[in-house]
Amino acid sequence: MPGVILCRILKSARRREAWEVPEVASMDDCELCQDPLITEKGLDHPQKIAELDVSTAILNRDWQYYRGSALLVFQDHVTELHHLEPEMRHRFMEDACRLAAAVEKTFQPHKLNHAVLGNSVPHLHWHLIPRRQSDPHPTQAIWENDFPQLSLGDEELRALAEQIRTNL
Amino acid sequence: MPGVILCRILKSARRREAWEVPEVASMDDCELCQDPLITEKGLDHPQKIAELDVSTAILNRDWQYYRGSALLVFQDHVTELHHLEPEMRHRFMEDACRLAAAVEKTFQPHKLNHAVLGNSVPHLHWHLIPRRQSDPHPTQAIWENDFPQLSLGDEELRALAEQIRTNL
Repeated sequence: MPGVILCRILKSARRREAWEVPEVASMDDCELCQDPLITEKGLDHPQKIAELDVSTAILNRDWQYYRGSALLVFQDHVTELHHLEPEMRHRFMEDACRLAAAVEKTFQPHKLNHAVLGNSVPHLHWHLIPRRQSDPHPTQAIWENDFPQLSLGDEELRALAEQIRTNL
Repeated sequence: MPGVILCRILKSARRREAWEVPEVASMDDCELCQDPLITEKGLDHPQKIAELDVSTAILNRDWQYYRGSALLVFQDHVTELHHLEPEMRHRFMEDACRLAAAVEKTFQPHKLNHAVLGNSVPHLHWHLIPRRQSDPHPTQAIWENDFPQLSLGDEELRALAEQIRTNL
Protein backbone atom coordinates (compact mmCIF):
# COMPACT_ATOMS: atom_id res chain seq x y z
CA MET A 1 0.00 0.00 0.00
CA PRO A 2 2.06 2.90 -1.26
CA GLY A 3 2.22 5.83 1.07
CA VAL A 4 0.90 3.99 4.08
CA ILE A 5 4.36 3.45 5.49
CA LEU A 6 5.31 7.05 4.87
CA CYS A 7 2.16 8.27 6.59
CA ARG A 8 2.96 6.04 9.48
CA ILE A 9 6.51 7.28 9.95
CA LEU A 10 5.31 10.85 10.09
CA LYS A 11 2.82 9.99 12.80
CA SER A 12 4.85 7.45 14.70
CA ALA A 13 7.16 9.78 16.60
CA ARG A 14 4.61 10.59 19.29
CA ARG A 15 3.99 6.97 20.11
CA ARG A 16 7.55 5.80 20.51
CA GLU A 17 9.48 5.79 23.75
CA ALA A 18 13.18 6.20 24.33
CA TRP A 19 13.99 2.53 24.15
CA GLU A 20 12.26 2.32 20.80
CA VAL A 21 14.64 4.64 18.96
CA PRO A 22 15.08 2.94 15.63
CA GLU A 23 18.46 1.45 14.87
CA VAL A 24 18.38 1.39 11.11
CA ALA A 25 21.73 0.32 9.82
CA SER A 26 20.90 -0.70 6.29
CA MET A 27 18.32 -0.34 3.58
CA ASP A 28 17.01 -3.83 4.37
CA ASP A 29 15.56 -2.53 7.64
CA CYS A 30 14.50 0.87 6.36
CA GLU A 31 10.83 1.70 5.88
CA LEU A 32 11.59 4.38 3.31
CA CYS A 33 13.84 2.12 1.25
CA GLN A 34 10.92 -0.31 1.02
CA ASP A 35 8.04 2.13 0.44
CA PRO A 36 6.58 1.77 -3.06
CA LEU A 37 5.86 5.50 -3.03
CA ILE A 38 9.62 5.89 -3.28
CA THR A 39 10.69 2.70 -5.00
CA GLU A 40 8.12 2.83 -7.80
CA LYS A 41 9.14 5.53 -10.21
CA GLY A 42 6.61 7.56 -12.15
CA LEU A 43 3.74 9.81 -11.15
CA ASP A 44 1.00 7.30 -10.41
CA HIS A 45 0.86 7.95 -6.70
CA PRO A 46 -1.30 10.94 -5.63
CA GLN A 47 1.43 12.25 -3.33
CA LYS A 48 4.19 12.11 -5.92
CA ILE A 49 5.39 15.49 -7.14
CA ALA A 50 8.43 14.50 -9.18
CA GLU A 51 11.53 12.41 -9.48
CA LEU A 52 14.33 14.93 -9.14
CA ASP A 53 18.08 14.55 -9.64
CA VAL A 54 19.00 12.61 -6.48
CA SER A 55 15.70 12.50 -4.62
CA THR A 56 11.97 11.91 -4.90
CA ALA A 57 9.70 14.86 -4.12
CA ILE A 58 6.38 13.98 -2.51
CA LEU A 59 3.59 15.76 -0.69
CA ASN A 60 3.51 15.25 3.04
CA ARG A 61 0.05 13.77 3.44
CA ASP A 62 -0.26 14.58 7.14
CA TRP A 63 0.91 18.17 7.06
CA GLN A 64 -1.43 19.69 4.45
CA TYR A 65 -2.78 22.05 7.10
CA TYR A 66 0.38 23.82 5.95
CA ARG A 67 -0.78 23.56 2.36
CA GLY A 68 1.97 22.49 -0.01
CA SER A 69 4.17 20.81 2.63
CA ALA A 70 6.45 18.39 0.89
CA LEU A 71 9.52 16.28 1.41
CA LEU A 72 12.44 15.06 -0.59
CA VAL A 73 13.59 11.51 0.04
CA PHE A 74 17.23 10.96 -0.85
CA GLN A 75 17.81 8.19 -3.37
CA ASP A 76 20.14 6.08 -1.18
CA HIS A 77 20.07 4.90 2.40
CA VAL A 78 22.17 7.48 4.21
CA THR A 79 21.44 8.78 7.68
CA GLU A 80 23.27 12.10 7.88
CA LEU A 81 23.63 14.97 5.43
CA HIS A 82 27.32 15.39 6.20
CA HIS A 83 27.99 11.72 5.49
CA LEU A 84 27.29 12.40 1.81
CA GLU A 85 30.13 13.36 -0.50
CA PRO A 86 30.12 17.13 -1.19
CA GLU A 87 28.95 16.64 -4.77
CA MET A 88 26.01 14.53 -3.64
CA ARG A 89 24.90 16.91 -0.91
CA HIS A 90 25.11 19.79 -3.34
CA ARG A 91 22.87 17.95 -5.75
CA PHE A 92 20.47 17.22 -2.89
CA MET A 93 20.52 20.91 -1.95
CA GLU A 94 19.76 21.79 -5.58
CA ASP A 95 16.75 19.45 -5.52
CA ALA A 96 15.56 21.13 -2.31
CA CYS A 97 16.01 24.61 -3.73
CA ARG A 98 14.29 23.68 -6.97
CA LEU A 99 11.32 22.38 -4.99
CA ALA A 100 11.41 25.46 -2.73
CA ALA A 101 11.26 27.76 -5.74
CA ALA A 102 8.32 25.81 -7.17
CA VAL A 103 6.45 25.88 -3.85
CA GLU A 104 7.13 29.60 -3.55
CA LYS A 105 5.85 30.23 -7.09
CA THR A 106 2.76 28.09 -6.47
CA PHE A 107 1.66 29.44 -3.09
CA GLN A 108 3.55 32.71 -2.45
CA PRO A 109 4.10 31.82 1.20
CA HIS A 110 5.47 34.37 3.63
CA LYS A 111 8.36 32.05 4.58
CA LEU A 112 9.71 28.62 3.82
CA ASN A 113 10.88 26.24 6.53
CA HIS A 114 13.43 23.51 5.89
CA ALA A 115 14.08 20.61 8.25
CA VAL A 116 16.31 17.58 7.97
CA LEU A 117 15.57 15.61 11.14
CA GLY A 118 15.23 11.85 10.67
CA ASN A 119 14.63 11.08 14.33
CA SER A 120 11.85 8.65 13.63
CA VAL A 121 13.02 7.33 10.28
CA PRO A 122 16.74 7.85 9.84
CA HIS A 123 16.80 7.73 6.04
CA LEU A 124 17.89 11.13 4.77
CA HIS A 125 14.83 13.23 3.91
CA TRP A 126 14.30 16.97 3.70
CA HIS A 127 11.05 18.64 4.81
CA LEU A 128 9.87 21.81 3.13
CA ILE A 129 7.00 23.66 4.81
CA PRO A 130 5.43 26.83 3.40
CA ARG A 131 4.41 29.29 6.12
CA ARG A 132 1.79 32.04 5.86
CA GLN A 133 1.05 35.11 7.91
CA SER A 134 -2.37 33.55 8.44
CA ASP A 135 -0.83 30.57 10.29
CA PRO A 136 -2.09 30.43 13.88
CA HIS A 137 1.46 30.77 15.23
CA PRO A 138 3.45 32.10 12.31
CA THR A 139 6.68 32.77 14.19
CA GLN A 140 6.85 29.32 15.78
CA ALA A 141 8.08 26.02 14.40
CA ILE A 142 5.09 23.96 13.25
CA TRP A 143 5.85 21.32 15.88
CA GLU A 144 5.29 23.70 18.78
CA ASN A 145 1.51 23.42 18.48
CA ASP A 146 -0.85 20.67 17.46
CA PHE A 147 -2.47 21.23 14.10
CA PRO A 148 -5.30 19.41 12.32
CA GLN A 149 -4.35 16.43 10.19
CA LEU A 150 -6.43 17.21 7.12
CA SER A 151 -7.70 14.20 5.24
CA LEU A 152 -7.17 15.28 1.67
CA GLY A 153 -8.55 12.85 -0.86
CA ASP A 154 -6.42 11.38 -3.61
CA GLU A 155 -7.78 13.74 -6.24
CA GLU A 156 -7.03 16.77 -4.10
CA LEU A 157 -3.50 15.51 -3.48
CA ARG A 158 -2.98 14.83 -7.18
CA ALA A 159 -4.11 18.35 -8.06
CA LEU A 160 -1.81 19.86 -5.45
CA ALA A 161 1.16 17.79 -6.64
CA GLU A 162 0.40 18.78 -10.23
CA GLN A 163 0.28 22.48 -9.30
CA ILE A 164 3.75 22.30 -7.78
CA ARG A 165 5.09 20.11 -10.58
CA THR A 166 4.16 22.62 -13.26
CA ASN A 167 6.24 25.23 -11.45
CA LEU A 168 9.35 23.09 -11.12
CA MET B 1 25.44 43.46 24.78
CA PRO B 2 26.60 40.77 22.41
CA GLY B 3 24.40 37.73 22.32
CA VAL B 4 21.48 39.32 24.07
CA ILE B 5 19.64 39.96 20.82
CA LEU B 6 20.33 36.47 19.60
CA CYS B 7 19.07 35.01 22.86
CA ARG B 8 15.98 37.10 22.51
CA ILE B 9 15.15 35.99 18.99
CA LEU B 10 15.34 32.39 20.01
CA LYS B 11 12.92 32.98 22.84
CA SER B 12 10.64 35.46 21.16
CA ALA B 13 8.64 33.10 18.97
CA ARG B 14 6.35 31.99 21.76
CA ARG B 15 5.39 35.52 22.70
CA ARG B 16 4.50 36.88 19.28
CA GLU B 17 1.05 36.81 17.73
CA ALA B 18 0.05 36.59 14.09
CA TRP B 19 0.01 40.32 13.51
CA GLU B 20 3.53 40.60 14.83
CA VAL B 21 5.18 38.54 12.11
CA PRO B 22 8.33 40.47 11.37
CA GLU B 23 8.62 42.16 8.02
CA VAL B 24 12.37 42.44 7.69
CA ALA B 25 13.20 43.76 4.28
CA SER B 26 16.77 44.91 4.76
CA MET B 27 19.77 44.59 7.01
CA ASP B 28 18.96 47.97 8.56
CA ASP B 29 15.94 46.42 10.31
CA CYS B 30 17.50 43.05 11.04
CA GLU B 31 18.42 42.05 14.57
CA LEU B 32 21.02 39.56 13.41
CA CYS B 33 22.70 42.03 11.07
CA GLN B 34 23.15 44.33 14.09
CA ASP B 35 24.16 41.78 16.73
CA PRO B 36 27.79 42.26 17.82
CA LEU B 37 28.02 38.49 18.33
CA ILE B 38 27.86 38.30 14.55
CA THR B 39 29.30 41.62 13.47
CA GLU B 40 32.36 41.51 15.73
CA LYS B 41 34.76 39.00 14.29
CA GLY B 42 37.07 36.94 16.50
CA LEU B 43 36.51 34.51 19.32
CA ASP B 44 35.97 36.84 22.26
CA HIS B 45 32.33 35.99 22.78
CA PRO B 46 31.66 32.86 24.90
CA GLN B 47 29.11 31.56 22.35
CA LYS B 48 31.38 31.97 19.34
CA ILE B 49 32.61 28.72 17.83
CA ALA B 50 34.24 29.95 14.64
CA GLU B 51 34.10 32.21 11.63
CA LEU B 52 33.56 29.80 8.75
CA ASP B 53 33.62 30.40 5.00
CA VAL B 54 30.29 32.22 4.54
CA SER B 55 28.80 32.06 8.04
CA THR B 56 29.47 32.49 11.73
CA ALA B 57 29.09 29.40 13.91
CA ILE B 58 27.83 30.02 17.43
CA LEU B 59 26.43 28.03 20.32
CA ASN B 60 22.71 28.34 20.84
CA ARG B 61 22.64 29.62 24.39
CA ASP B 62 19.04 28.60 25.06
CA TRP B 63 19.15 25.07 23.69
CA GLN B 64 22.06 23.59 25.65
CA TYR B 65 19.70 21.02 27.15
CA TYR B 66 20.56 19.49 23.78
CA ARG B 67 24.24 19.88 24.55
CA GLY B 68 26.24 21.20 21.63
CA SER B 69 23.29 22.84 19.83
CA ALA B 70 24.65 25.46 17.51
CA LEU B 71 23.70 27.67 14.64
CA LEU B 72 25.30 29.14 11.58
CA VAL B 73 24.38 32.70 10.70
CA PHE B 74 24.80 33.46 7.01
CA GLN B 75 27.12 36.40 6.29
CA ASP B 76 24.59 38.49 4.33
CA HIS B 77 20.98 39.47 4.87
CA VAL B 78 19.07 36.91 2.83
CA THR B 79 15.77 35.38 3.90
CA GLU B 80 15.51 32.16 1.91
CA LEU B 81 18.05 29.44 1.13
CA HIS B 82 16.88 29.16 -2.47
CA HIS B 83 17.35 32.89 -3.03
CA LEU B 84 21.10 32.37 -2.77
CA GLU B 85 23.12 31.68 -5.90
CA PRO B 86 23.99 27.95 -6.16
CA GLU B 87 27.65 28.56 -5.36
CA MET B 88 26.77 30.46 -2.20
CA ARG B 89 24.30 27.91 -0.92
CA HIS B 90 26.81 25.16 -1.55
CA ARG B 91 29.37 27.04 0.50
CA PHE B 92 26.77 27.49 3.25
CA MET B 93 26.01 23.76 3.09
CA GLU B 94 29.73 23.04 3.40
CA ASP B 95 29.91 25.23 6.51
CA ALA B 96 26.94 23.33 7.95
CA CYS B 97 28.46 19.95 7.19
CA ARG B 98 31.83 20.98 8.58
CA LEU B 99 30.13 22.01 11.82
CA ALA B 100 28.02 18.84 11.81
CA ALA B 101 31.14 16.69 11.49
CA ALA B 102 32.79 18.57 14.37
CA VAL B 103 29.71 18.24 16.59
CA GLU B 104 29.52 14.54 15.75
CA LYS B 105 33.20 14.05 16.59
CA THR B 106 32.84 15.99 19.85
CA PHE B 107 29.67 14.40 21.24
CA GLN B 108 28.97 11.22 19.25
CA PRO B 109 25.25 11.93 19.15
CA HIS B 110 22.80 9.32 17.93
CA LYS B 111 21.42 11.72 15.28
CA LEU B 112 21.86 15.26 14.05
CA ASN B 113 18.92 17.55 13.31
CA HIS B 114 19.15 20.43 10.86
CA ALA B 115 16.58 23.22 10.63
CA VAL B 116 16.48 26.37 8.55
CA LEU B 117 13.34 28.13 9.74
CA GLY B 118 13.66 31.89 10.20
CA ASN B 119 10.04 32.43 11.25
CA SER B 120 10.94 34.75 14.06
CA VAL B 121 14.08 36.31 12.62
CA PRO B 122 14.13 35.97 8.84
CA HIS B 123 17.88 36.32 8.37
CA LEU B 124 19.17 33.04 6.96
CA HIS B 125 20.47 30.84 9.79
CA TRP B 126 20.91 27.10 10.09
CA HIS B 127 20.26 25.22 13.35
CA LEU B 128 22.21 22.10 14.19
CA ILE B 129 20.96 20.03 17.12
CA PRO B 130 22.67 16.85 18.36
CA ARG B 131 20.20 14.21 19.51
CA ARG B 132 20.88 11.37 21.94
CA GLN B 133 19.10 8.16 22.75
CA SER B 134 18.86 9.52 26.28
CA ASP B 135 16.71 12.47 25.12
CA PRO B 136 13.27 12.36 26.77
CA HIS B 137 11.56 12.12 23.37
CA PRO B 138 14.31 11.03 21.01
CA THR B 139 12.11 10.42 17.98
CA GLN B 140 10.35 13.78 18.15
CA ALA B 141 11.41 17.21 16.97
CA ILE B 142 12.79 19.18 19.91
CA TRP B 143 9.96 21.74 19.59
CA GLU B 144 7.26 19.16 20.34
CA ASN B 145 7.96 19.27 24.07
CA ASP B 146 9.13 21.95 26.45
CA PHE B 147 12.66 21.50 27.65
CA PRO B 148 14.66 23.28 30.37
CA GLN B 149 16.55 26.39 29.36
CA LEU B 150 19.85 25.69 31.04
CA SER B 151 21.72 28.72 32.25
CA LEU B 152 25.26 27.87 31.29
CA GLY B 153 27.81 30.36 32.49
CA ASP B 154 30.23 32.08 30.15
CA GLU B 155 33.09 29.79 31.11
CA GLU B 156 31.04 26.69 30.43
CA LEU B 157 29.97 28.09 27.06
CA ARG B 158 33.55 28.98 26.17
CA ALA B 159 34.71 25.46 27.02
CA LEU B 160 31.94 23.93 24.93
CA ALA B 161 32.69 26.20 21.96
CA GLU B 162 36.39 25.37 22.27
CA GLN B 163 35.66 21.63 22.30
CA ILE B 164 33.74 21.89 19.04
CA ARG B 165 36.26 24.28 17.51
CA THR B 166 39.16 21.88 18.02
CA ASN B 167 37.25 19.27 16.00
CA LEU B 168 36.49 21.54 13.04
